[in-house]
Amino acid sequence: MAQNIYDNPEFFEGYSRLGRSVEGLEGASEWPALRALLPDLAGLRVLDLGCGYGWFCRWAREHGAVSVLGIDVSEKMLERARATTTDRAISYARADAETLDLPAAAFDLAYSSLALHYIEDLGGLLAKLHDAVVPGGHLVFSVEHPIFMAPSHQGFSVAANGGKIWPLDNYLVEGPRTRDWLAKGVTKQHRTVGTYLNLVLHAGFALTHIQEWGPTEEQIAARPDWADERHRPYFMLVSARQA
Amino acid sequence: MAQNIYDNPEFFEGYSRLGRSVEGLEGASEWPALRALLPDLAGLRVLDLGCGYGWFCRWAREHGAVSVLGIDVSEKMLERARATTTDRAISYARADAETLDLPAAAFDLAYSSLALHYIEDLGGLLAKLHDAVVPGGHLVFSVEHPIFMAPSHQGFSVAANGGKIWPLDNYLVEGPRTRDWLAKGVTKQHRTVGTYLNLVLHAGFALTHIQEWGPTEEQIAARPDWADERHRPYFMLVSARQA
Repeated sequence: MAQNIYDNPEFFEGYSRLGRSVEGLEGASEWPALRALLPDLAGLRVLDLGCGYGWFCRWAREHGAVSVLGIDVSEKMLERARATTTDRAISYARADAETLDLPAAAFDLAYSSLALHYIEDLGGLLAKLHDAVVPGGHLVFSVEHPIFMAPSHQGFSVAANGGKIWPLDNYLVEGPRTRDWLAKGVTKQHRTVGTYLNLVLHAGFALTHIQEWGPTEEQIAARPDWADERHRPYFMLVSARQA
Repeated sequence: MAQNIYDNPEFFEGYSRLGRSVEGLEGASEWPALRALLPDLAGLRVLDLGCGYGWFCRWAREHGAVSVLGIDVSEKMLERARATTTDRAISYARADAETLDLPAAAFDLAYSSLALHYIEDLGGLLAKLHDAVVPGGHLVFSVEHPIFMAPSHQGFSVAANGGKIWPLDNYLVEGPRTRDWLAKGVTKQHRTVGTYLNLVLHAGFALTHIQEWGPTEEQIAARPDWADERHRPYFMLVSARQA
């Protein structure tokens, strides 16, 4: 079972102050790129795995989805998600993604933002998503990029020539990575880019786009301190079709 | 046009002494993994782009290919390739991959080992390969891994804690990387993993497997000095089907 760090009070408090928690989707640097991978939502039945405060669930409804099911392991986040909407076409359910039961062929889009890197049995979950999505339906997700997650020291260093470098090590050594981020002992699962993509393929999806996220020129113009983000990708965004 | 460094005497001399030049396929650390991505060659018409000394062309014939066309930009390498076989089902042709003309639907497998990272217009080349391969046919290639190619300093450093790190920078900054390797000023084209895969998809292939190469446990047992190779992938191997 994946760690439910979101119900840790210290983590929850820190998380609730992040830009993406306060401002919603527009507060997430990678959102424009992730949004670009989404199909037209008009008429679609949407599943959001790791829905958190429900920002995407509400956005999906505003953009034409006929129904949205948001799933999260955190009761605290679901409480807040439920409090923000009276829309009866949005439902929320608490479930651990690793033991989740989903109805067959019930969704046209399975979406997940920054949640799948907590999952130990990702192959098992993707097989369930394949069953839950109709043929031709969509899978769109983001995860912390494996280059970002892998290293022993998860931060920039200064090289001999004075430039910044990302001190990559153990990229090919897959398994848990436990870090202190907002709270002590947050555990995510490191797997390589290749492993992520092969799991998606093996589950029966056809890959359609892979994006290793870095800031656009416009984002760097607005936020010059983001220039270092070009040294290594922070997020990986993937889209696929149920084949 | 891609640089033809292989006809540089200094480079050619150095290259001809590498394990993969002396021992052939078995001298290439990633060969077992690349071989595992190949279809059964029995009865297939094979194209080898960047065939070098023709090791793979001969191997393909020994494993059932009915015909093999080896293409390389280096006259020196083709000379040696031609000298090693009298098999009339193997042909060699000199061509620059960027200006190459290929017959339509003439091949069942397009193969390329460590050549595509020299190509500037990779999208254009992949479009030609898509036309040259029959529907359902195979594309299998290896390139130097983008994590390996990207950095300003292409070698391990020692971190503050004494461990080795790969000093990654400029991963998201695509374009030429000029290094001194066997000769001065060898130019390869850096593109991200995402860009490689999206170019393959955009050309009309369906991805089937992505492998970021590192040594197996067996290889490390035989060559303990390879253990550091797990810190970052040296090669990326990709297989796809003409869709």
